[in-house]
Amino acid sequence: MTAGERLVLASASRVRSWVLENAGLVFDVDPADVDENAIKQDMSSQGVAAEAIAMTLAEKKAQVVSMRRPQAWVIGADQVLVLENRIFDKPADMKEAASHLRQFRGRSHDLISAVCVTREQHLVWRHTETVTLHVREYSDTFLEKYLSKSGNSLLDSVGAYRLEGLGAQLFSRVDGDYFSVLGLPLLPLLGFLRGQGVIAL
Amino acid sequence: MTAGERLVLASASRVRSWVLENAGLVFDVDPADVDENAIKQDMSSQGVAAEAIAMTLAEKKAQVVSMRRPQAWVIGADQVLVLENRIFDKPADMKEAASHLRQFRGRSHDLISAVCVTREQHLVWRHTETVTLHVREYSDTFLEKYLSKSGNSLLDSVGAYRLEGLGAQLFSRVDGDYFSVLGLPLLPLLGFLRGQGVIAL
Repeated sequence: MTAGERLVLASASRVRSWVLENAGLVFDVDPADVDENAIKQDMSSQGVAAEAIAMTLAEKKAQVVSMRRPQAWVIGADQVLVLENRIFDKPADMKEAASHLRQFRGRSHDLISAVCVTREQHLVWRHTETVTLHVREYSDTFLEKYLSKSGNSLLDSVGAYRLEGLGAQLFSRVDGDYFSVLGLPLLPLLGFLRGQGVIAL
Repeated sequence: MTAGERLVLASASRVRSWVLENAGLVFDVDPADVDENAIKQDMSSQGVAAEAIAMTLAEKKAQVVSMRRPQAWVIGADQVLVLENRIFDKPADMKEAASHLRQFRGRSHDLISAVCVTREQHLVWRHTETVTLHVREYSDTFLEKYLSKSGNSLLDSVGAYRLEGLGAQLFSRVDGDYFSVLGLPLLPLLGFLRGQGVIAL
């Protein structure tokens, strides 16, 4: 078994791959085909808390991939954005991205990131982390500039922003872990994998 | 006067330039020639608190550049690392980087980032931010791998690490603002510049 067969990321997110790669991990990417928005909306309409929704989605992704990769340590992850009890999905197009960003303006929202690991179809570890982001009262001119400069890359994120680019100008304050903003609470995950001997001490 | 003449970064740090550029700012880089280590050691031996040392250095850099660029908004910044009341300077060579990292192992330290703005040689704004980083009990094997993979790039940072690369594996937890880890509390700085009309609302 190669190192790549031992550790699998069950997510199509380029940002999550990038976070793990940068940290020096060797892994395969094998995205789970899960209808995230349907599950999110169904659970949300039943009044399930956002944290539980994020974890359920992370677990579902890991379980699906664990069925075809039973020997591997499979990482599932999900991120949910909550503004005043309402869950926001990834915007479908630039028009929706603009609408979401306008609703975030002048308010605070939470990004809840869930990460878990399965092996032989068993859930062996899970962790959630919440970051609170304070969006400033930016001008319509700034929003237009932001949308035109960022383009479709915004559609990859639940918040329609990337803190590490021009998106930083959307915020007055960010309270919480940087890796969790990116959608993967990296340090707790590394701690777990280290304890299992999957990555070196 | 062009936008670049309005805003000047009085720091040679490539990471600080990168943070400002990524956030979409237009500015000149004009590093102040200040003997940082001498000032740091002198103040430290007099028992001056780390936060005051970082701010003094940030102000000195901004003042020096403000003399030759009186019309500009000049950004000065500095970062100090404190472990159990001892201030660590940037390592001079890889041997010292290894020694510092060994002293950080299994302990927590603070990164204190100071940023200020001068105009017409007057200090018009300042801010400090502290981040606490918890270094895990990594193995000697990991340290060797880290040093050989990272090379001289480690000498650019007071901590001899970069959280955004393999350096993430050094830590069990990071409490505080990501931009401050990089040496520039970006969001408060943007807020000040916006209030002065230096950057758009």
